[in-house]
Amino acid sequence: MGKIRVGVAGYGTIGQRLADGVAQQEDMELVGIADLAPTLSLQALRERDMIGANGVKYDLYLVDGADKAAFDAKKIPVAGTFEELCKKVDVMLDSSPGGVGASNKEKYYVPLGVKAIFQGGEKNSVADVFFHGYANFEKGVGKDYLKLTSCNTTGLIRTVDCLDRAIGLDRVAITIIRRVADPGDYHRGLTNALQMDKAPSHQAVDLMTIMPHVNATGILVHTPVTHGHIITVVASARDGKKITKEAALAAFQQHPRIRVVNIDEGFKGNASLFKYARDLGNRRGDMYEIGLWEDSIVESGNDIMYAINIPQESVTIPETMDAIRACTGIQTTREEGTAMTNKYLGIGKFKEI
Amino acid sequence: MGKIRVGVAGYGTIGQRLADGVAQQEDMELVGIADLAPTLSLQALRERDMIGANGVKYDLYLVDGADKAAFDAKKIPVAGTFEELCKKVDVMLDSSPGGVGASNKEKYYVPLGVKAIFQGGEKNSVADVFFHGYANFEKGVGKDYLKLTSCNTTGLIRTVDCLDRAIGLDRVAITIIRRVADPGDYHRGLTNALQMDKAPSHQAVDLMTIMPHVNATGILVHTPVTHGHIITVVASARDGKKITKEAALAAFQQHPRIRVVNIDEGFKGNASLFKYARDLGNRRGDMYEIGLWEDSIVESGNDIMYAINIPQESVTIPETMDAIRACTGIQTTREEGTAMTNKYLGIGKFKEI
Amino acid sequence: MGKIRVGVAGYGTIGQRLADGVAQQEDMELVGIADLAPTLSLQALRERDMIGANGVKYDLYLVDGADKAAFDAKKIPVAGTFEELCKKVDVMLDSSPGGVGASNKEKYYVPLGVKAIFQGGEKNSVADVFFHGYANFEKGVGKDYLKLTSCNTTGLIRTVDCLDRAIGLDRVAITIIRRVADPGDYHRGLTNALQMDKAPSHQAVDLMTIMPHVNATGILVHTPVTHGHIITVVASARDGKKITKEAALAAFQQHPRIRVVNIDEGFKGNASLFKYARDLGNRRGDMYEIGLWEDSIVESGNDIMYAINIPQESVTIPETMDAIRACTGIQTTREEGTAMTNKYLGIGKFKEI
Amino acid sequence: MGKIRVGVAGYGTIGQRLADGVAQQEDMELVGIADLAPTLSLQALRERDMIGANGVKYDLYLVDGADKAAFDAKKIPVAGTFEELCKKVDVMLDSSPGGVGASNKEKYYVPLGVKAIFQGGEKNSVADVFFHGYANFEKGVGKDYLKLTSCNTTGLIRTVDCLDRAIGLDRVAITIIRRVADPGDYHRGLTNALQMDKAPSHQAVDLMTIMPHVNATGILVHTPVTHGHIITVVASARDGKKITKEAALAAFQQHPRIRVVNIDEGFKGNASLFKYARDLGNRRGDMYEIGLWEDSIVESGNDIMYAINIPQESVTIPETMDAIRACTGIQTTREEGTAMTNKYLGIGKFKEI
Repeated sequence: MGKIRVGVAGYGTIGQRLADGVAQQEDMELVGIADLAPTLSLQALRERDMIGANGVKYDLYLVDGADKAAFDAKKIPVAGTFEELCKKVDVMLDSSPGGVGASNKEKYYVPLGVKAIFQGGEKNSVADVFFHGYANFEKGVGKDYLKLTSCNTTGLIRTVDCLDRAIGLDRVAITIIRRVADPGDYHRGLTNALQMDKAPSHQAVDLMTIMPHVNATGILVHTPVTHGHIITVVASARDGKKITKEAALAAFQQHPRIRVVNIDEGFKGNASLFKYARDLGNRRGDMYEIGLWEDSIVESGNDIMYAINIPQESVTIPETMDAIRACTGIQTTREEGTAMTNKYLGIGKFKEI
Repeated sequence: MGKIRVGVAGYGTIGQRLADGVAQQEDMELVGIADLAPTLSLQALRERDMIGANGVKYDLYLVDGADKAAFDAKKIPVAGTFEELCKKVDVMLDSSPGGVGASNKEKYYVPLGVKAIFQGGEKNSVADVFFHGYANFEKGVGKDYLKLTSCNTTGLIRTVDCLDRAIGLDRVAITIIRRVADPGDYHRGLTNALQMDKAPSHQAVDLMTIMPHVNATGILVHTPVTHGHIITVVASARDGKKITKEAALAAFQQHPRIRVVNIDEGFKGNASLFKYARDLGNRRGDMYEIGLWEDSIVESGNDIMYAINIPQESVTIPETMDAIRACTGIQTTREEGTAMTNKYLGIGKFKEI
Repeated sequence: MGKIRVGVAGYGTIGQRLADGVAQQEDMELVGIADLAPTLSLQALRERDMIGANGVKYDLYLVDGADKAAFDAKKIPVAGTFEELCKKVDVMLDSSPGGVGASNKEKYYVPLGVKAIFQGGEKNSVADVFFHGYANFEKGVGKDYLKLTSCNTTGLIRTVDCLDRAIGLDRVAITIIRRVADPGDYHRGLTNALQMDKAPSHQAVDLMTIMPHVNATGILVHTPVTHGHIITVVASARDGKKITKEAALAAFQQHPRIRVVNIDEGFKGNASLFKYARDLGNRRGDMYEIGLWEDSIVESGNDIMYAINIPQESVTIPETMDAIRACTGIQTTREEGTAMTNKYLGIGKFKEI
Repeated sequence: MGKIRVGVAGYGTIGQRLADGVAQQEDMELVGIADLAPTLSLQALRERDMIGANGVKYDLYLVDGADKAAFDAKKIPVAGTFEELCKKVDVMLDSSPGGVGASNKEKYYVPLGVKAIFQGGEKNSVADVFFHGYANFEKGVGKDYLKLTSCNTTGLIRTVDCLDRAIGLDRVAITIIRRVADPGDYHRGLTNALQMDKAPSHQAVDLMTIMPHVNATGILVHTPVTHGHIITVVASARDGKKITKEAALAAFQQHPRIRVVNIDEGFKGNASLFKYARDLGNRRGDMYEIGLWEDSIVESGNDIMYAINIPQESVTIPETMDAIRACTGIQTTREEGTAMTNKYLGIGKFKEI
């Protein structure tokens, strides 16, 4: 069996990282990326002769409405049209702006028989399955259209699914302390203010869609920072069973995509984890694992409470790689699929030290 | 019975507001304030001819080690020494830097037979009672030395005590989204980062000292803002009883020191409440009530979850006025004591609109 | 001669402060304020029984398109329509959103013969004179329509006009370090970023309109703070004459609306001045004077360089009061007009200490 | 002639990047790095098997006072002592905390005959020459001890030296809009405030030390951001000669370490440049060039004004590589020395697109 041929539609914050992720999967081929305008991100790629992660060349295709002359003016080479890209791939990772993915599906993916994986900005109805690599991998196997959970939900579910499999959960109540913008964003921002969203937060609702046997609710507060969300979770076991700190910690420590950290070591907050990823030499300073503070875990009656860090720009990349594996069926179980993704992304190696 | 004679030691962020609070109590007399150096706050008072809240003149006394020449250089009039102030008052509100209050107690309050009320920076052992106007007023009646809860704990307990009296609580799990500095602070700050504290937060521990029949734990995260903390609370009733949103809301709406607000009205976050206090024309733009978002209240199984706003500079002022009433015995019950404080501070009038 | 009758159209950040300013002018009467919707600012006024600054009752009139039922629902009393307000006033201070002032002029002010003073959001063409109380008071005398300079330009011109009168200026080059939002703003913001505007900044251009004999240019950088802009100025005298630090400082110290401050005193930045205004007990924590740091003044060849602080919410209020005086002709000279405004607003008293 | 053998003392924010810089110089060998404690940065290096930039292994030596057991506990391999490292190198790059470099010089560098290059935190007296690769390369040739300018001064001098060589400068007046902390810093911060430093700023003073024929002064304002300082410069030519925008721009565009950018392209501020460096795939998201906004350049009389962006973490790395070349004499002219540094760091290639 040859390599899975993958395209990426939309070379924004998520799309760039999806392309980098695919470029690292040795059983996949990044056929190309597609975008509308010669953004700074594409100019940066051009400055590096279109060479992206892992030494892979990123061929650029133009979506409908793109002005080729604008790309020529910036000396950015163009390989073809989005339709041409679609015809060359097995799976398209669609990280277009919200709503465009649904339109792409109708116009290209369905007629051309291309499988597609959508990001959190699309409606759930665009996909056959609302997908998470660890929580419901098998539901995605062989399906044509999957939708990924958003960044907060993806990271949150890693821990909730982890506890659920180890102990059995009845419900969670979450507080999302949300970073309001990504580094470099100027189109949105918040200055010296905390901002409330109406409860329950959509992340809690989304969690219940993926894990219908767990009740979830939560409150989201926006904060004026850019380096990672922090979520606190109060989790209750089924049948009123007690969750001890020891049991929770043991479960978390075995999860490849959860990095258990401590304040005393120097992981003082979300910015410490961003800095650590830069110090690792990770491309773009990204981190695939979520952080979980060991010294935040406390018992509340029979419940357990803990805090996690979500690297919002990169956290969904591994689960999207999982989704490619599921929908194409190159792996058919959660264990095999996530293991292969982890291997190629270098996830979990730190556990061995 | 004449007016209660009150002094304020330390004219910092809290001390200024304590003085303003006393100046509004018609059954109290602000005898004077005391400080060490001619700070900008004292220069501002001087620029207003030493006239503070409610048209009251604030006489300034100097604590040990103060350099009178420095005050003369700024043309700030001095009324005497701290010892002289102590001799003129029934109660001293001690808002000195942490540790100084304990020293003042030994050197002045005990020898001179002056009652004293300490703020959150002192150790609990400095006082006979760790006090909250609504949760344990009666414990403070007639006592010589009381210590107030800190700003977060004061506001939090208003809601926890409120639910406990209405429904009966077993435990709470809180997430404190803490403002890291006050407006105008340059000696501390945080830039583009969320910072973790080790769990459990001291506020949860303090709550259990005041309300020993309620179990409490929590996680605190510092955020780079100045206008008010936000706390989310997950509260569980005794015996597994369900707390409905309606029951919780009804209880909150009757509490004079809780201002129930909505996002749709425009109360989008902590900064909206700060702006509202300024628009009210409140001195210093302060607010005595905490805000509680009606549209944050959600049920989690049998538990209830909600979010509150803590105006950190001013929230402890009413409970400190309560403490004066308790320790001097001019009122002897929670209902009478808090009602008198509320009347003079104009608290709860908005409920009547 | 009776009191000047004044109305305020638009009760937003500026409008509220204009109303407060008029309420303090003993030779003026605040006839009423006008707005479109029952904003939180109006709800705050309602909570204080419609009593604003100086104990004055603020009667509310509704502009075209307002839904009276929405005001009734919030129990906010309404005194009449905007047209009715126009008929009762000599001068309208128009602080409507940008563009609405021009429409109001055509529909109401011209037909009804009402003078009007517009804020910086309107185009210059709406007015007969682009006005600054200190720089060109006499040009506004007797005119019907004046437009005020924006907050940065108003404060900047205080210092440039001051140096120009004392020494004679050829040109200024300014760097505006702009606060990006007001406290309580959620509709705009910036997070962990400095943002460039194209040069030259409009403030430099506006300065040249008011002071055509001075050349001006500048660069503006937005910063994620809310408490006051800081501007650095490099000023060059005519004919290459040297400006000494002593001469510049002497001129600044005599200006009633310039507060010369020092870092060593504790005025460490824009937030120190905001805090000081709150400590003064100023309504809303506002400051009418700009701050000028004595320890920022340095010589550069024959030029002088210095830094000022602009309290953006309130700095234009005094110059708007000046404008009322000019257009109605109750004072006809810069000296008399600004002196009367300063007297009623309590400006410059601190100079006497 | 063999490769220059280089060591790095102190593996903090600057030291890490110095090591990365040396690892990319094909005519140099990174012999090792030295530090005191098993910091997170060293743990990150350990997690990558001690492999740093360009596939180079970084051997770790321990400075006096280090606790080897602490490194063992983190499984970080240790190659020897700092003295051993000193004996193996031709040049030590000393990025120890301020003051330690001077102590290292006395204890190790002088006795062992090792050349050393100090960073901005040391006093000027530690070195023979206060050095800048473009402004005074030749002064450093063959010397034993050089000290680099700090980040702001390094970037600033690139442009001032550039204009001076092209046009001839008399003086500059600068406004430094300083980022207050680096990403990941928790030990310092500023929240919702701009903070003044006393004028003149040390950067202006330092500039005059490097370029004594140019007069310089300036004002520095700290801002609560982490991604790069912005400096505005007002530059005056000698003899009152006019500097046109065209002449200035032409000079800047030819400088390899100045990246001329535009707001319209999307370079909206300091965070855009940080994002661009991440999108380039640069290690740690670093940038060696400063940014200079073409649309910020304006004429003020005969003077020119412009704004630049300083990537504070990485900007001094190229000039430090220049310093190695100068002190060892492998190149003896500014042109040859900087060209070789630029070649190995990939600087200026973007100019060719």
